[in-house]
Amino acid sequence: MRNFAIEPLVRAALAEDMGRSGDLTTDALVDAERTASATIVARRAGTIFGHEAAALTFKLLDEQIVYRIAVADGQPVEAGAQIATLRGRARTLLTGERTALNFLGHLCGIATATRALVDAVAGTGARIADTRKTTPGLRMLEKAAVRAGGGGNHRFGLYDAVLIKDNHIVLAGGIRPAIAAARVATGHTVKLEVEVDTLDQLRDVLAEPGVDAVLLDNMPVPLLKEAVQLAGGRLVTEASGNISIANVAAVARTGVNVISVGWLTHSAPALDLSMEIAI
Amino acid sequence: MRNFAIEPLVRAALAEDMGRSGDLTTDALVDAERTASATIVARRAGTIFGHEAAALTFKLLDEQIVYRIAVADGQPVEAGAQIATLRGRARTLLTGERTALNFLGHLCGIATATRALVDAVAGTGARIADTRKTTPGLRMLEKAAVRAGGGGNHRFGLYDAVLIKDNHIVLAGGIRPAIAAARVATGHTVKLEVEVDTLDQLRDVLAEPGVDAVLLDNMPVPLLKEAVQLAGGRLVTEASGNISIANVAAVARTGVNVISVGWLTHSAPALDLSMEIAI
Amino acid sequence: MRNFAIEPLVRAALAEDMGRSGDLTTDALVDAERTASATIVARRAGTIFGHEAAALTFKLLDEQIVYRIAVADGQPVEAGAQIATLRGRARTLLTGERTALNFLGHLCGIATATRALVDAVAGTGARIADTRKTTPGLRMLEKAAVRAGGGGNHRFGLYDAVLIKDNHIVLAGGIRPAIAAARVATGHTVKLEVEVDTLDQLRDVLAEPGVDAVLLDNMPVPLLKEAVQLAGGRLVTEASGNISIANVAAVARTGVNVISVGWLTHSAPALDLSMEIAI
Amino acid sequence: MRNFAIEPLVRAALAEDMGRSGDLTTDALVDAERTASATIVARRAGTIFGHEAAALTFKLLDEQIVYRIAVADGQPVEAGAQIATLRGRARTLLTGERTALNFLGHLCGIATATRALVDAVAGTGARIADTRKTTPGLRMLEKAAVRAGGGGNHRFGLYDAVLIKDNHIVLAGGIRPAIAAARVATGHTVKLEVEVDTLDQLRDVLAEPGVDAVLLDNMPVPLLKEAVQLAGGRLVTEASGNISIANVAAVARTGVNVISVGWLTHSAPALDLSMEIAI
Amino acid sequence: MRNFAIEPLVRAALAEDMGRSGDLTTDALVDAERTASATIVARRAGTIFGHEAAALTFKLLDEQIVYRIAVADGQPVEAGAQIATLRGRARTLLTGERTALNFLGHLCGIATATRALVDAVAGTGARIADTRKTTPGLRMLEKAAVRAGGGGNHRFGLYDAVLIKDNHIVLAGGIRPAIAAARVATGHTVKLEVEVDTLDQLRDVLAEPGVDAVLLDNMPVPLLKEAVQLAGGRLVTEASGNISIANVAAVARTGVNVISVGWLTHSAPALDLSMEIAI
Amino acid sequence: MRNFAIEPLVRAALAEDMGRSGDLTTDALVDAERTASATIVARRAGTIFGHEAAALTFKLLDEQIVYRIAVADGQPVEAGAQIATLRGRARTLLTGERTALNFLGHLCGIATATRALVDAVAGTGARIADTRKTTPGLRMLEKAAVRAGGGGNHRFGLYDAVLIKDNHIVLAGGIRPAIAAARVATGHTVKLEVEVDTLDQLRDVLAEPGVDAVLLDNMPVPLLKEAVQLAGGRLVTEASGNISIANVAAVARTGVNVISVGWLTHSAPALDLSMEIAI
Repeated sequence: MRNFAIEPLVRAALAEDMGRSGDLTTDALVDAERTASATIVARRAGTIFGHEAAALTFKLLDEQIVYRIAVADGQPVEAGAQIATLRGRARTLLTGERTALNFLGHLCGIATATRALVDAVAGTGARIADTRKTTPGLRMLEKAAVRAGGGGNHRFGLYDAVLIKDNHIVLAGGIRPAIAAARVATGHTVKLEVEVDTLDQLRDVLAEPGVDAVLLDNMPVPLLKEAVQLAGGRLVTEASGNISIANVAAVARTGVNVISVGWLTHSAPALDLSMEIAI
Repeated sequence: MRNFAIEPLVRAALAEDMGRSGDLTTDALVDAERTASATIVARRAGTIFGHEAAALTFKLLDEQIVYRIAVADGQPVEAGAQIATLRGRARTLLTGERTALNFLGHLCGIATATRALVDAVAGTGARIADTRKTTPGLRMLEKAAVRAGGGGNHRFGLYDAVLIKDNHIVLAGGIRPAIAAARVATGHTVKLEVEVDTLDQLRDVLAEPGVDAVLLDNMPVPLLKEAVQLAGGRLVTEASGNISIANVAAVARTGVNVISVGWLTHSAPALDLSMEIAI
Repeated sequence: MRNFAIEPLVRAALAEDMGRSGDLTTDALVDAERTASATIVARRAGTIFGHEAAALTFKLLDEQIVYRIAVADGQPVEAGAQIATLRGRARTLLTGERTALNFLGHLCGIATATRALVDAVAGTGARIADTRKTTPGLRMLEKAAVRAGGGGNHRFGLYDAVLIKDNHIVLAGGIRPAIAAARVATGHTVKLEVEVDTLDQLRDVLAEPGVDAVLLDNMPVPLLKEAVQLAGGRLVTEASGNISIANVAAVARTGVNVISVGWLTHSAPALDLSMEIAI
Repeated sequence: MRNFAIEPLVRAALAEDMGRSGDLTTDALVDAERTASATIVARRAGTIFGHEAAALTFKLLDEQIVYRIAVADGQPVEAGAQIATLRGRARTLLTGERTALNFLGHLCGIATATRALVDAVAGTGARIADTRKTTPGLRMLEKAAVRAGGGGNHRFGLYDAVLIKDNHIVLAGGIRPAIAAARVATGHTVKLEVEVDTLDQLRDVLAEPGVDAVLLDNMPVPLLKEAVQLAGGRLVTEASGNISIANVAAVARTGVNVISVGWLTHSAPALDLSMEIAI
Repeated sequence: MRNFAIEPLVRAALAEDMGRSGDLTTDALVDAERTASATIVARRAGTIFGHEAAALTFKLLDEQIVYRIAVADGQPVEAGAQIATLRGRARTLLTGERTALNFLGHLCGIATATRALVDAVAGTGARIADTRKTTPGLRMLEKAAVRAGGGGNHRFGLYDAVLIKDNHIVLAGGIRPAIAAARVATGHTVKLEVEVDTLDQLRDVLAEPGVDAVLLDNMPVPLLKEAVQLAGGRLVTEASGNISIANVAAVARTGVNVISVGWLTHSAPALDLSMEIAI
Repeated sequence: MRNFAIEPLVRAALAEDMGRSGDLTTDALVDAERTASATIVARRAGTIFGHEAAALTFKLLDEQIVYRIAVADGQPVEAGAQIATLRGRARTLLTGERTALNFLGHLCGIATATRALVDAVAGTGARIADTRKTTPGLRMLEKAAVRAGGGGNHRFGLYDAVLIKDNHIVLAGGIRPAIAAARVATGHTVKLEVEVDTLDQLRDVLAEPGVDAVLLDNMPVPLLKEAVQLAGGRLVTEASGNISIANVAAVARTGVNVISVGWLTHSAPALDLSMEIAI
């Protein structure tokens, strides 16, 4: 079912790498019908995600390629581990290599960074979540990578939940009118979250009915703690802004329900992977 | 002219964020005809690139938005600098904000990292270049960001130059047969580069006519120096692998012509940007 | 902003009517540069919606057509009223006529039917809503037509809210395990609704935390009343199934919050419209 | 062969329902590899059409779904009849259900309405036909549904036949100049039909060579009878406008060759269908 | 109106020439804002067609290019004549040159060849027409080029008229059953033509009602003459097969109504054109 | 692997021929499940190319068609030879026939013309190459047809090599500044060729480093000979302009490395092919 949505991304990535004249090097050097094996190896430790995109890369080029998953999505690996093995036409393996690794490296990087944060907050009850600060075109895959790393997803876009932010509040003339307007306009199937910077703003939110969650933006840990207590479990609390592997446990211990982290999807370094051919 | 190629990427990014029901929050809170101003601000120092994608994001939503560039593509900024100002319907500004910032942050991150490497090798004659290790779907924009940072571009894909790598050599039965086969198959408009790991391999390359460049893969600086001397200016020399801001100057001082760096496009952190609305 | 999403639908509808050889009749009979005026007239009373799709139909054929709205989206008309006037090349008016009227007639039909139900429940506090029983390809426009008629929208698709239905309950082994599983898997930005047929099922729902709404499926009015009382305002109540203009007021008087009606979007008859050319 | 043309419609309908994040409910509640059976049942009597679109809905999600037709396209059913059975992954069945039923319900509704009119004119020699008053995007499927109900198709679009209507006549300066211009411009593979409101107009048509058919627009039955006699079999006669199940037999008995009916495709109510899962 | 249909072809042709990295030469050598003039010149005499595709080529790259038609579609030119002049950014002129000339040269070639045949049959009453033997993807433009050369169009595709050919006759069990079956299946808006090789086959056609035209395939001139006489004006007669500029007048003098010529669209040589820049 | 790139072209060609209502004739006359065999026959001698596009034409309509290649791409045939045989549903064979033959005829025509030139220069060391003067949309296939005929490919587009032509030289202020600018702007993976008309221009080219090839435009044979001697093997020499089967051997004997020929792809006549059904 998933290929239905991933396929346009993989086609675009292949088209970007192959242009219209294809792989000049491979077509010149490798006989069309020659077969080979290959392994995809993680050069560093991390958490794996992206097999569907990688496998589809090769399958779109050549339906007969066999792609075997050695380490499943969501699983950890040590440096040097084989994460997949392939067998089929050597041309296909070489032509698809870079595109497949570009998907895998990027997505494993996100899963790996997520897993590190998730492990750091283990036992606290806080959930690590992503944001909409994603790489243009890849949001769906990046959010799946966050899930593979043990995190949860925030909104998928502007279309599936209401999140009232500072700029909205300015334009709506304050938090309470903003909430009231959103409550009227939004159907019963849409959640409503409000972003606040201060306890006063939080008090305004708590005074209005119909708010499902509050995003506590860029609050230092002591203020965050106070905010969580003030909320008193009446709505979901979310911390966001300046979260790092160094401070995430302290943030979690404030009792906040969700910790959302933009750099998971916009700045996590790629996991270093390589593909090795065997004839 | 460029919008011709960028537009599908921007449309895809907007579609990803807006889905089919659009921006629930903004449509609920902000009057359709209300106008506002906004500024895009760099929260950290860096090198700017991506105005075309950012401006197109807003223009595709609403042709009447005015997007004024304050700091041009390729220029440096200090933390806190305004890089663009906008004016138009408040709804459009809010709805396009995240998509535009996602493009800009990613591309400025690449330009910034490139500029740091370019500055580090200033005066050596070496050119910093990218690779095909790019984010799926964004290669063209990422390669333009590298140029904006003062770098140069390696091949755009498998289709515009021949690069014989280790896996090709294995399948072709050695470097010299590989080069010979490529020379026959490739027309007079295509360049031919060969990747080598050792000086022996380099000697094989130098023994064959028709090779335009050699990629010296993962060589320590002393070996690289020897390789550059062995090549003796008969072809372009390129170093790649394990290049960092710490070692790039030493690599450049070997006399190598080109230094190509994968992480510029797959792991450079995004530049931190924000958009602020004024009513 | 809306044209961004509607344009593919209008292009597809035009392509369907024009094929590749275009409007044989008009091209044969009408000089390319001749201009004319036209009016779009409602032959029956109703509520108007669809001007954006209609105007875009003509604009995609010819940017210079002037389309003036006489009766705005969401407004009522009597039979015989002019709802829009056009001026421009006569060929464009004739070629776009049927496609524009097909959009308008279908969407006005939905707005008209919605308005009738909304008027019938006026004063009760119940909101009329649509469902996912829409015409393939037109959901976004049809849901906008429902809003224009004074109704509200249920989920836009499978992707923006959880609705646990009978088939899910069977597969999950009961209502309570189903709710528990949904609560774990779903982030804090997604609402959770459960469909029930009986009061016993409703009691199961009320025993679980984290449910935002309950869909009371096909319940006769007395049972519905009992269910609403049992729910006691702890979650949103929605009635669905066998709703007609005859019984909708009685349903509303049970105190249910939302009444969702499939036939609004799959079986509302088109509003009868015509376009008249004046030279 | 037909899937070639239907596939874009089904993909669009699935995309509309699934967005990018897919079926939140089913993915949360149902194990990925669990299998189930399902039946599609007609809740009311009618004529079936749409199995190709329904089967393709499931197949695009998951190639391994087995869709077995129980009542073939064009066949009648009683209320309660199973029209198809399915077996495969439970997730696919649930995720595809609404989209498949939306296609089937709409198309069976058209086939059912057509069959009623066709039966009403049985024995008269008149043929029931559709028009271009179709639902935007679905014309091809709707016209196939009309054929499945025993009707015939009018033009598929503006591109495959000439039909001179009132607006054309106004712009061409009269019926006879309009016909003359069309005859010159149109090749020998295109038919020429003219719409008339009066017997005088009909006489003009009959005075011109090269007209293949005449559309007698909105004529009361006695006038229609006179027109058919005046035409005297020299060209095909077609009645259109205000045709209902109540008057269609009377219209047919005038001897007219074709009776075309807009509401078959724009206002026929959907046939009520449901899908039931069995585990 | 026409750009609506031509645009995808022009976009595809530009994409084919520009790839993703664009015009390396022009971007390296010509300043982005420099302007220039250019003329498109016919190096040989011919008939012009294709300005819309050529102008759109430049306009898609840069909306500000001014493209002035010097010799209109359908007009003859002598060798050396300027057929269009352009003014705007020099980069755009250079980048669009080859794509625009490829469209124009191909289409002028078809118009020129058509005009030669049309002139050769002047005064005979026979019309020169094209066939479906067109270049894949360009049929619509090629058929417009035939019209510009004074010819007429045969069917646009398999979808807009019935043409029963030898292979259909074999499968239908003879000409008369084939015609009978087509008459039943085809609505009153579709013409019916039959291809015959012999007078006996022609007699079969004439014995069946409802046939609009007969294609006399590959008949020598004397046989063709006999066939036309046998048909006696009861249906349109069309000659096809082995038509050349040498024999077309003789064919026309048989009295046949239409002469259709495949090589007009699949083998007419391009008209030699060039673009000259002036600074 | 190749179908990945050809498929959009074949889909477009089928859509162009089938429209939305498909093959009216075949659907009316031939039973849906009837099977048949067919052969594709070359009516004239030539060189074959295009089986992938032809086979894909049928396969996109019906996956079960068996297409067997009788004469492989690149091989010569005599008039009357069978080049492929097919078996499957008769409808598919008839519906796909014209589209498949249109691809094959066009591409075999190019391969045949290329082979004639290649044979004419056999033994001289000169290579026949194509240009960018291709049919819009078909460049990739046409360049593959040139290879099948024994020729080589020039640039695939503006994006994969630099070719400085007369218009560039005018705008850059001379040949030497043009070369210097190109050398700076272009990375080490891109070749640089310059077009010259005179020996003086050639001397300018030879005085600049970094030029890989020179295009000697429209030079008479004696001048060409002089130019080749002047170049002295220091760069690749290419002749272009006014090449015909009559003079190509004389051009080749000048010692030029490459002879590029525009009419191979824009004016080579189609090879005459037919498809014959056997039941």
